[in-house]
Amino acid sequence: MTLDVGVLGYRFMGNAHANAMARLPMFFPDAPAVNRSVLVGRDESALEEAADRFGFDSVATDWADVVDEVDVFYNLGPNHVHAEPSIAALEAGTPVFCEKPLAPTLETAEEMADAAANAGEDVPAGCAFNYRFVPAIQYAKRLLEAGDLGEIRHVRGRYLQDWLVDPEAPWSWRNDAELAGSGALGDLGAHTVDLLRFLVGDDDLAGEIDRVSGHLRTFVDDRPVPGEDDTRPVTVDDAYSAQVEFENGAMGSLEASRFATGHKNDHTIEIHGSEGSLRFSLERLNELELIRDGNRGYETILVTDADDPYIDHWWPPGHVLGWEHTFVHENYEFLSAVAEGTEFEPSFADGLAAQRVLAAIEESDERGEWITLE
Amino acid sequence: MTLDVGVLGYRFMGNAHANAMARLPMFFPDAPAVNRSVLVGRDESALEEAADRFGFDSVATDWADVVDEVDVFYNLGPNHVHAEPSIAALEAGTPVFCEKPLAPTLETAEEMADAAANAGEDVPAGCAFNYRFVPAIQYAKRLLEAGDLGEIRHVRGRYLQDWLVDPEAPWSWRNDAELAGSGALGDLGAHTVDLLRFLVGDDDLAGEIDRVSGHLRTFVDDRPVPGEDDTRPVTVDDAYSAQVEFENGAMGSLEASRFATGHKNDHTIEIHGSEGSLRFSLERLNELELIRDGNRGYETILVTDADDPYIDHWWPPGHVLGWEHTFVHENYEFLSAVAEGTEFEPSFADGLAAQRVLAAIEESDERGEWITLE
Amino acid sequence: MTLDVGVLGYRFMGNAHANAMARLPMFFPDAPAVNRSVLVGRDESALEEAADRFGFDSVATDWADVVDEVDVFYNLGPNHVHAEPSIAALEAGTPVFCEKPLAPTLETAEEMADAAANAGEDVPAGCAFNYRFVPAIQYAKRLLEAGDLGEIRHVRGRYLQDWLVDPEAPWSWRNDAELAGSGALGDLGAHTVDLLRFLVGDDDLAGEIDRVSGHLRTFVDDRPVPGEDDTRPVTVDDAYSAQVEFENGAMGSLEASRFATGHKNDHTIEIHGSEGSLRFSLERLNELELIRDGNRGYETILVTDADDPYIDHWWPPGHVLGWEHTFVHENYEFLSAVAEGTEFEPSFADGLAAQRVLAAIEESDERGEWITLE
Amino acid sequence: MTLDVGVLGYRFMGNAHANAMARLPMFFPDAPAVNRSVLVGRDESALEEAADRFGFDSVATDWADVVDEVDVFYNLGPNHVHAEPSIAALEAGTPVFCEKPLAPTLETAEEMADAAANAGEDVPAGCAFNYRFVPAIQYAKRLLEAGDLGEIRHVRGRYLQDWLVDPEAPWSWRNDAELAGSGALGDLGAHTVDLLRFLVGDDDLAGEIDRVSGHLRTFVDDRPVPGEDDTRPVTVDDAYSAQVEFENGAMGSLEASRFATGHKNDHTIEIHGSEGSLRFSLERLNELELIRDGNRGYETILVTDADDPYIDHWWPPGHVLGWEHTFVHENYEFLSAVAEGTEFEPSFADGLAAQRVLAAIEESDERGEWITLE
Repeated sequence: MTLDVGVLGYRFMGNAHANAMARLPMFFPDAPAVNRSVLVGRDESALEEAADRFGFDSVATDWADVVDEVDVFYNLGPNHVHAEPSIAALEAGTPVFCEKPLAPTLETAEEMADAAANAGEDVPAGCAFNYRFVPAIQYAKRLLEAGDLGEIRHVRGRYLQDWLVDPEAPWSWRNDAELAGSGALGDLGAHTVDLLRFLVGDDDLAGEIDRVSGHLRTFVDDRPVPGEDDTRPVTVDDAYSAQVEFENGAMGSLEASRFATGHKNDHTIEIHGSEGSLRFSLERLNELELIRDGNRGYETILVTDADDPYIDHWWPPGHVLGWEHTFVHENYEFLSAVAEGTEFEPSFADGLAAQRVLAAIEESDERGEWITLE
Repeated sequence: MTLDVGVLGYRFMGNAHANAMARLPMFFPDAPAVNRSVLVGRDESALEEAADRFGFDSVATDWADVVDEVDVFYNLGPNHVHAEPSIAALEAGTPVFCEKPLAPTLETAEEMADAAANAGEDVPAGCAFNYRFVPAIQYAKRLLEAGDLGEIRHVRGRYLQDWLVDPEAPWSWRNDAELAGSGALGDLGAHTVDLLRFLVGDDDLAGEIDRVSGHLRTFVDDRPVPGEDDTRPVTVDDAYSAQVEFENGAMGSLEASRFATGHKNDHTIEIHGSEGSLRFSLERLNELELIRDGNRGYETILVTDADDPYIDHWWPPGHVLGWEHTFVHENYEFLSAVAEGTEFEPSFADGLAAQRVLAAIEESDERGEWITLE
Repeated sequence: MTLDVGVLGYRFMGNAHANAMARLPMFFPDAPAVNRSVLVGRDESALEEAADRFGFDSVATDWADVVDEVDVFYNLGPNHVHAEPSIAALEAGTPVFCEKPLAPTLETAEEMADAAANAGEDVPAGCAFNYRFVPAIQYAKRLLEAGDLGEIRHVRGRYLQDWLVDPEAPWSWRNDAELAGSGALGDLGAHTVDLLRFLVGDDDLAGEIDRVSGHLRTFVDDRPVPGEDDTRPVTVDDAYSAQVEFENGAMGSLEASRFATGHKNDHTIEIHGSEGSLRFSLERLNELELIRDGNRGYETILVTDADDPYIDHWWPPGHVLGWEHTFVHENYEFLSAVAEGTEFEPSFADGLAAQRVLAAIEESDERGEWITLE
Repeated sequence: MTLDVGVLGYRFMGNAHANAMARLPMFFPDAPAVNRSVLVGRDESALEEAADRFGFDSVATDWADVVDEVDVFYNLGPNHVHAEPSIAALEAGTPVFCEKPLAPTLETAEEMADAAANAGEDVPAGCAFNYRFVPAIQYAKRLLEAGDLGEIRHVRGRYLQDWLVDPEAPWSWRNDAELAGSGALGDLGAHTVDLLRFLVGDDDLAGEIDRVSGHLRTFVDDRPVPGEDDTRPVTVDDAYSAQVEFENGAMGSLEASRFATGHKNDHTIEIHGSEGSLRFSLERLNELELIRDGNRGYETILVTDADDPYIDHWWPPGHVLGWEHTFVHENYEFLSAVAEGTEFEPSFADGLAAQRVLAAIEESDERGEWITLE
């Protein structure tokens, strides 16, 4: 059986997922066969060009024609078009893979999660938190599950970029509250919250995030519109920070910024437990820094050995992987779940859980006080 | 003229300051001559032994006999004995150098600052925030003052240690609210707040800290008392975190812990400005990591060149300094101010300013909301 | 026009090149179209399986049937089968891309280079030194060519692996002088010599390597044969080191080992010039450490910006690439040269030049004295 | 009993040793009492100033008046004045501590070692290789002695500085073969050879250095003389490299340069054994990077714990030491040996052993072939 895949979105994320699908047969021969069937978008000529380059059979400008025709639907558009097509697909019984954050508002995210729940367990609805699929992160997860770090005391996650540090950097939909929901909080913070939930969210580790205190800030209020003689207001945060408390008492600090001069894509996770500590940065994604057992300091581990997660599919030890490989792993897992009709994680429920935390951070910022999650 | 110095406290800090005074003549020949005159403490035999080792002429068990006899009074005792002797000394017109944090409570710190103000400008009252005197920090200060980092956007400070991670680590006065005031917050956070005030507190940089949201936590509630068959309650925080907002809009994240497995004395500062970024860790105190000008990434600078702050007093480039050298620099500056009857910074007013921030963090934690500093 | 490609070798290198060809259309749309036509090997069933997985139309067990049928011939077999098929292909006017080192002996390498010269400039004969195509290396090359490092004084190159540190690690053709020519010297040292020639070999930089003093060593003399109850002798070096002198007076140190415990694929280059220095390690291949201009220390540059070499074909800044991307770049350049009938570098002449250095190192080791290259 | 110490040399090394002696009572209370008795030099006014600052009772311009009057004689002058006063002192039965390298020529070094042997075991003659006394190095030695790294395969040592990279940097005695013996080789290489002998020289580790192949080079032939309108020739090496073979088969690479742009005092040691690896750099002298046991990568250890070598004399964990502390440890050990009339290592015999290696490297460079040490 070959899965016909329909994909909405043909820019950065469209490219990343199309590439991932294209690479499965050579490196994950047990993945289900995939046919890149139809690419969905609005600008027809750009769409045609992308379909050709990404290896799609056809194009469509109306997702409504697609969602019940294909075996799987990928929703890779901007945040404000996540909900309607995804819900329609799920209602048609079509598995959905949706980019993060799930939706621009908590309410919409809830509707999406409901639609996923109604579709049933054999219709996977995945939220594309690809950083769960970094081998070093999966390796860290193994260690945490095995109890190697002991009781979790401190958790830090920050995601630093600098592409808005120039006040003349152009306005885009990512600066608009209507279209994007939020700024650094939703775009970057969603990744951080999901990654921490994945790593320490288990009951016998830190558990879920219980309370949050948030802080949002916009440094530049208006930005020039490309090709226009005008500026448009920035209605989302340029940066956020948050303090969080986990169910089992661990303390957390979160932060993201698009104003961190010199940091390009620096998603850093740090965890201290009673028995060990670990650190990870996306800019050195093949490495995990680890303290455990009798270690006196951080051990810099190149997570590229044959028995490391996913590595047997690739190259010999020390032949490092890149950012895009996370999409291959993620697509492998999601498409396998589709083929087998089993659940996939991170699910829409995970997407919603992350969104609840982000919404609480935003609410906390508005009210100037801690917010307890229900 | 030789300054007769009286020192209260003969343990860790007594040793560090006595060593600093002893080293001045060889490396800072223009420092005022100092006579280590009298060492003050309660346990006479330990005191005698220390006085002998640290090179003091005599000992005393009552500070009241000392504070108006000496030319300078160093108060290096536990926090709860900072106020009374320091105030007495200042009332007697004796310059005072007091360890940090200034006092266990904000009220007491205010009394001490008042006493310093009343003593007049020619009676220096210094608060021993030694990390201002790390050459790499002074070099960072130069760059910040010159505007090399542009507008300050993000400030991070964290101080990580791990000496309490073992629940069987013994109880000490540092775990007691009466004696210590607070835990990681006062002991470590005081350093962080002062260092950030020093680096970015100027009006044309971030300015003072305006609002805070704090979080304190005690992970282990009781600890064994050394030599006893009993435990005593831990009544201070094991760790704190805080979000802060500076006058000019920069965002800050602060944190300290005694439970950060594998970190021994990791006081880290990170600053992002519109034109550059910098990072510093006390565990590599000879280094400053810097982005400026056309830099694309952090430049790791060994701050040991002849024209770096204080370095001409020491060794050739690359012959690194240690932690204790900060005390030599600090003592040099303070004793020079005493000899010249001029002001010294960090002063009691700086000590109080830091304490206001710490108190606001504590209050914020209790009330679960942001606190604006007056 | 679509190029029909024949590939000899279907293991590690076969996989790496097949993958590279498969990825060109999506990321390098101006690359010539390529048809993975025929895969050549001896073990038919393994070959069929590989052809299926790597996307080849057909298989062949005799390269002689292939070399004049295809538009391009890739020779990715073990070193001892590099010469005959490559020469046959070139004699048939078929462009050849051959893995490194060019041949197990200097004589054979010379024959191959002669064949390439005879084939003419419009029949590219490339030697697959893929590390020239790391973006950070290409960026370093730009800086060196621009004179940013000044006069070259010191050059270091070392390639450290550890897969033979266990004396029970199995015997393979790589341990046999007949089949492999040499050990760490040819396998790893060839990369190092080529990379240094590429980076500093220009006349106005260090120039070519002039004299060498070499040292080879085998630490474990016999190794178990997999599936047999026997051992076979190791007749190649486990490690080599060399001192070299460049034409313009720079000093060099080379080294490679398969016994460097904990190093997986650590190919490190270091260069000191009168105006700057640089460092690179393959284990962090997205980074270049650089001193230039007014820098006081190494700047850690993430070479993933849009204007960095090859990066505009891939992802946004900070979305790091992996080891395999070097093959995509290399195949893009080589296949473009084939389509246009232009020269490609590194050529067989470059392969031979590297081999001359390796042979001189070996001869120097045998004779215990410096060898001057002609 | 108090030891009267006479010191020849009052510049950099005079300062470093005077400081070390001054610090012993406070931190090493069981060290013998020391009286800085007489400082020896030629320029009387500079000498008086130095004696005052370094805490000496008196000065002398003729060492011959001093060597048999004092209890210990420190020879800290330039290399060409090491021999005569040291031999005279030893003949008078006075223990000698001499800076490295022992002498400008091998012959002179042999005479000095003979004098030390004739003086007898209760008259310690030490060669001041201070880097043996870095806590991280002593800790590494412990691990090596315990066999934690297994059989030693590779040893690397390099010492990089950049103070001559500017061709206008002034001429000094260090550039003159008569006065200094050699350049980077003797000044820096002596440290490296001694440190490697200390770390892996034991019979059950790598053993002594057996054979060497050396390379010396002078990049700038003449340098301006300060205060003169003239230049003087540089008659020593600006840099050297060497390959070495140890008795038990380990391979070594050595190197030093005064032309390594951006490196200030970067003395780096790297060792690979069958069971582990380690790395050390003097620019981060509180750290040891270590692979052992089940480690997968280098563990960065801050060697400042209470049970680390010498640390119990200083500060709590994480309160880092500096370069000068190595002199305190070295003086403690040497003066204790003097007081007890026991042997001290590194001895003149160790100084001679290092010098034999350096001389062989120089000879190898001249003859263009490997030299076997006898």
